[in-house]
Amino acid sequence: MTPLQIASSLNDIAQQTRQAASLLALLSTEAKNQAIASVAQALESAKDKILQANLADCEAATADGIAQPLYKRLQLDEHKLRDAIAGVRDVGKLADPVGQVQIQRELDTGLILKRITCPLGVLGIIFEARPEAAIQIISLAIKSGNGVILKCGKEAVRSCEAIVAAVKTGLSTTDVNPDVVQLLTTREETLALLQLDKYVDLIIPRGSNSFVRFVQENTRIPVLGHADGICHIYIDKAADIETAIAVTVDAKVQYPAACNAIETLLIHQSIAGEFLPKVAQALAEQQVELRGDERTLQILPEIVPATATDWETEYSDFILSIKIVDSLTDAIAHINQYGSRHTDAIITEDVAAVETFFGLVNSAGVFHNCSTRFADGFRYGFGAEVGISTQQMPPRGPVGLEGLVTYKYQMTGAGHIVATYTGANAKPFTHQDMKE
Amino acid sequence: MTPLQIASSLNDIAQQTRQAASLLALLSTEAKNQAIASVAQALESAKDKILQANLADCEAATADGIAQPLYKRLQLDEHKLRDAIAGVRDVGKLADPVGQVQIQRELDTGLILKRITCPLGVLGIIFEARPEAAIQIISLAIKSGNGVILKCGKEAVRSCEAIVAAVKTGLSTTDVNPDVVQLLTTREETLALLQLDKYVDLIIPRGSNSFVRFVQENTRIPVLGHADGICHIYIDKAADIETAIAVTVDAKVQYPAACNAIETLLIHQSIAGEFLPKVAQALAEQQVELRGDERTLQILPEIVPATATDWETEYSDFILSIKIVDSLTDAIAHINQYGSRHTDAIITEDVAAVETFFGLVNSAGVFHNCSTRFADGFRYGFGAEVGISTQQMPPRGPVGLEGLVTYKYQMTGAGHIVATYTGANAKPFTHQDMKE
Repeated sequence: MTPLQIASSLNDIAQQTRQAASLLALLSTEAKNQAIASVAQALESAKDKILQANLADCEAATADGIAQPLYKRLQLDEHKLRDAIAGVRDVGKLADPVGQVQIQRELDTGLILKRITCPLGVLGIIFEARPEAAIQIISLAIKSGNGVILKCGKEAVRSCEAIVAAVKTGLSTTDVNPDVVQLLTTREETLALLQLDKYVDLIIPRGSNSFVRFVQENTRIPVLGHADGICHIYIDKAADIETAIAVTVDAKVQYPAACNAIETLLIHQSIAGEFLPKVAQALAEQQVELRGDERTLQILPEIVPATATDWETEYSDFILSIKIVDSLTDAIAHINQYGSRHTDAIITEDVAAVETFFGLVNSAGVFHNCSTRFADGFRYGFGAEVGISTQQMPPRGPVGLEGLVTYKYQMTGAGHIVATYTGANAKPFTHQDMKE
Repeated sequence: MTPLQIASSLNDIAQQTRQAASLLALLSTEAKNQAIASVAQALESAKDKILQANLADCEAATADGIAQPLYKRLQLDEHKLRDAIAGVRDVGKLADPVGQVQIQRELDTGLILKRITCPLGVLGIIFEARPEAAIQIISLAIKSGNGVILKCGKEAVRSCEAIVAAVKTGLSTTDVNPDVVQLLTTREETLALLQLDKYVDLIIPRGSNSFVRFVQENTRIPVLGHADGICHIYIDKAADIETAIAVTVDAKVQYPAACNAIETLLIHQSIAGEFLPKVAQALAEQQVELRGDERTLQILPEIVPATATDWETEYSDFILSIKIVDSLTDAIAHINQYGSRHTDAIITEDVAAVETFFGLVNSAGVFHNCSTRFADGFRYGFGAEVGISTQQMPPRGPVGLEGLVTYKYQMTGAGHIVATYTGANAKPFTHQDMKE
């Protein structure tokens, strides 16, 4: 197809999705939960087909020489799939984010203002090679009353096609029109999707910083950036050494491919002499490669020198850069300059240092004496997440159902006009908040 | 200056603003309120200077042949200025939007998650020729802990320079660094401002749809669009005729230059014969020019025919387009196609029609039996507003202090690591919400 044909075909798809989504938006919680249950059932029935499709994806990726961390994300075994389907059922149990009354206020007798949550409309989600992400995203979209146009990584096309086919089968027996879920598979379609601001209300690109930036530069649709996680731990001069070692090791090695794993360790110069050899040994036992700045190399002469690029690199691997700083202020400045506003932690017993760190580090998550790996929708108790937002505006951090809805102001009057409340004899407003 | 010099100088200004704002973010409510009181005092002391500067702006604009509605917005008399200064004092009385605890949850013993509101950082606000808007925006920015870079319309440069000078004088005796407020005056600076995603966290363009679109296409910074208001009233077949006339007249003529005034009247065909002649007479008494579709012309043959452009035009003037529709569904389709997602009203006594209208009209405000002119931060009881957002994502509708803050997740542990909560012997999370 020519770019024009792709755009035209995608335009039709998006219009259908929007149409279907506008009816989904009006469905009751029960109807949405029934649809979610039916989707879970259909995914279970299609288990073998999905796993076979994934096997084919994995074989093709191996033949293409895929990198090991990417392969791990792509691979969908029976266990991962079962967990993902259980996750769909969990989303069914979460509170409905739609229809919540945020404001209910009498402006004057008989003039009532309400602010009520409602779906955004249609989500465009461009995600990486992790097929179970599609399952989670679809269930969150349905529960929040939104249509969703998915674009999966090219490595996962067969898996995602099998998943979306099962989802559509599941939906076909429910009140939810299967058109609410669509799958795109080519890069050309991604480009066309970014132009559909008439039909798509939010783009969620999951990937590298440069990819998120590319998307931001090529669309007028609002973008919720799930970008790199360049997370830091700062070991303050008042840190407890044992805590510092345990948390550093966990945050680096527990799952290095996760965006909430740390990439850089900042250490106050007055504690570096005692702490560095110990943490280096603990990390060496886990096969972590260390890269240090000049002062770090004076203490650990055997490690690799860090270059300027290291401070802005998400390794997603068993590699950690280390820098010695003169003060808390310098640590905060480094984090705000090189971090990705994801999650950064301080290890210290000094409450004043915590307060400064929490106040001045400009990240979605600021942690004290615990691992950055806790920055996650499940661990926060949100049930599920569509991504982790590193933008400044809400929704920020792990985004669950709450981040997929907006609100409307609904006003009901009895012929009220503004002229009554204007000018010399203006009637005052009462502005009384009401109980539901 | 060359574009490069402008960019470099603006970069320095933005960096200063960010630096000053990061300290403002940590100030207590009392310190911010003192600063706001001092700003109000300084504006009062500078009243004569500001009014003289405005007079010079108005004279220059008249010489340039400014349009009448724009002139009215530009003109700042003693009364408007007094109201604006009173508005500053009102902002001082509003609750502090910063530091509010939105979530406080125990994930496990000793591992506490909080979500706390915090300032966005630096706002970039590009506004039209209304000088008192600068006063309101500055007070909202300070109260919400944000720095603000203002770019005013070229007609209002003298007025805004006088206002910002007074504000800086007011701040100079307080804990708030005067650098938190900056004024830009040229179009070249606007373009450079849009590139400063490193220092500016939110752009609020106030102006036409095409201007907002231009801004969205030329920046990676999130944009809060305060665009055209193409608002509608739909007169349902079950409308009370008297209510319909009173609300239509108010929504059109009470202040036609406002974005929440209506531009198009949609009328159900079965009520048009009775309603149209009456409303036409009421509007004629207010010198409103009517433009009708073919069916309207059959009832009101003396009025101007409407063309396709009329449905997408914000007149901001005593002009109203009229269209007869066959059904509620057609009215909703027209609104969703041509409206600007601002505020749209239905006049009816039929509750089922209201429910359909509220559910399917995709606008920030959906009103029943009252004037669209109520869509306003003051009237909603928000105290003040920085603009009315016509975007889909929150903040939507009138944006007050609440829309100028974001949040951080703060987690405090005692050496907690994720490994404890993972794998075969994973400890479960407690996820207990806590009282403050």
